[in-house]
Amino acid sequence: MKKAGQRPDNITVTAPATIANLGAGFDLLGLAMEAPCDTITASRLSVQKLEFVSDPAFPELPLDTRNVAFYVAKKVYDAISPDTGAEIRLIKKIPPGSGMGGSAASAAAAAVAINTLFGSPFSREELLPFVVQGERLASGSPHADNAAPALLGGLCLLSPGKQMEVLRLPVSERFYWTVVLPACECNTREMRNLLPKMLSLATHTMQAGCLATLVSGLITGQSEWVSRGLHDLIAEPVRAIHIPGFAQVREAALDCGALGCSISGSGPAMFAVADTANTAGTIADAMQQAFREAGLASNAHISPVNTKGTLCTEQSLS
Amino acid sequence: MKKAGQRPDNITVTAPATIANLGAGFDLLGLAMEAPCDTITASRLSVQKLEFVSDPAFPELPLDTRNVAFYVAKKVYDAISPDTGAEIRLIKKIPPGSGMGGSAASAAAAAVAINTLFGSPFSREELLPFVVQGERLASGSPHADNAAPALLGGLCLLSPGKQMEVLRLPVSERFYWTVVLPACECNTREMRNLLPKMLSLATHTMQAGCLATLVSGLITGQSEWVSRGLHDLIAEPVRAIHIPGFAQVREAALDCGALGCSISGSGPAMFAVADTANTAGTIADAMQQAFREAGLASNAHISPVNTKGTLCTEQSLS
Repeated sequence: MKKAGQRPDNITVTAPATIANLGAGFDLLGLAMEAPCDTITASRLSVQKLEFVSDPAFPELPLDTRNVAFYVAKKVYDAISPDTGAEIRLIKKIPPGSGMGGSAASAAAAAVAINTLFGSPFSREELLPFVVQGERLASGSPHADNAAPALLGGLCLLSPGKQMEVLRLPVSERFYWTVVLPACECNTREMRNLLPKMLSLATHTMQAGCLATLVSGLITGQSEWVSRGLHDLIAEPVRAIHIPGFAQVREAALDCGALGCSISGSGPAMFAVADTANTAGTIADAMQQAFREAGLASNAHISPVNTKGTLCTEQSLS
Repeated sequence: MKKAGQRPDNITVTAPATIANLGAGFDLLGLAMEAPCDTITASRLSVQKLEFVSDPAFPELPLDTRNVAFYVAKKVYDAISPDTGAEIRLIKKIPPGSGMGGSAASAAAAAVAINTLFGSPFSREELLPFVVQGERLASGSPHADNAAPALLGGLCLLSPGKQMEVLRLPVSERFYWTVVLPACECNTREMRNLLPKMLSLATHTMQAGCLATLVSGLITGQSEWVSRGLHDLIAEPVRAIHIPGFAQVREAALDCGALGCSISGSGPAMFAVADTANTAGTIADAMQQAFREAGLASNAHISPVNTKGTLCTEQSLS
């Protein structure tokens, strides 16, 4: 935490959806999309308190710190401990329980908004622990696989060690990512309980080999390696059965030239990766059609990797 | 297999020692050293047969196809099926059972020697299955983690899939690799039997995260990532106890600035990686001293990654 700098009066901050796991990177990798984004607008108040304003599109979201965005805003606000307050408004575009990192995006936007409003005493990296605390509130586990790419952008690897660290890997910008969200929900905690506790050595070696292949492909931009590596032998087999039409949607994506297709986070959103924007569009159509045949409406998003993460898109100074 | 080209009368081929596993890359990664190398010299004979000549330094090595080099030479010879023969002499510098890929080097040198002598009808990649067959003879398992880097050079990843493929990853040439071989032997088959059959999901995630970190570091040349990633939670804990002084040797390497230190292949050789040739030299001294204190003499080799693999170093044409 450094000395506070310039303090705008009003700001708008957007934080992107993220694809966690990326197949072989179960619990390790996350990648930021360009859209959809959650947005926070914040204005400074002369009184020393935080006021939360609801998003009319999600009237069920609580207007207190049970809401991840407001919880993280409060944590950052208390850590800065400024002599003025703020009004915070959340505009939610990433539905909760979608598998697209909605809670991480709301939390990242809130953290950056409060930090910016009070002179940016924290660096981006210093804000990550606040966002991860929000993830603990949202899903019960303080995991950074959505939080890190939502905040920092790009392709993030959670690197184990005495202390877990987030590595922002260099990532080729040539790939296009399609995310399709069907109209159903998966509960993150329940999806986590499905996971096997033990694996065979052979399964470990296969999955680790796929991960190394995928990461090498994403760094170097080699499509063939991404295609070879984008598989998940651990989470996908137990989670896929909770997504209606999973096998057909995946097949539709691969038939249209997707390099790989799997579950985004813990679902129900599914993602695919392609070599060109055109192919990604064709893939989105085919995946949506397959969901429709399984009885589900859906939304699709296509983007290259978002290398910026959470952005302050507007600010005003009096 | 293409049409045979120029056929030299005599050739000399060298194939390098290799470090398999590289810590987190258990059963997946291998890296070629500049030295030591096994050498094959071969001369064409007018009669249609292979003759094997012994290495006086290893009089115990059989002079028939129980010897991996001669076994692979015979396989390649039979596949080419030329109308003349060859005399093959093996000069062995990588001791059997060292964990430095000795059988892979002998096999790679033999395969390239026979192929070159009869006009190079096979590409390097086409020779790999022959070398891997040699590994099956040597250790009971047709594994390519030494064979691929010995033949092709560089850093090789065994990428799983419907068919296992070898990916030659781009690798930073800035690191220096120290390999120290103590005067004791480990039996590859026995060392393989020590491995656990099942792992916890947490162990898998840690090891896979280390592997992704290591591979990212080796591709991009980031020392800190190599240091974070070079750990092995699976093979090292059960194999280290069979290497006298293991913990002290590892500590000595790390104390001298090694980015990481683990078992080379299934041991007893140990390797360390460093940022500079000078540091690698200091590390070699410290590791040898620690082995000495454990009662073992040792040999050390230091080199950057060998990107060439098996080389034809000399040939004559009449």
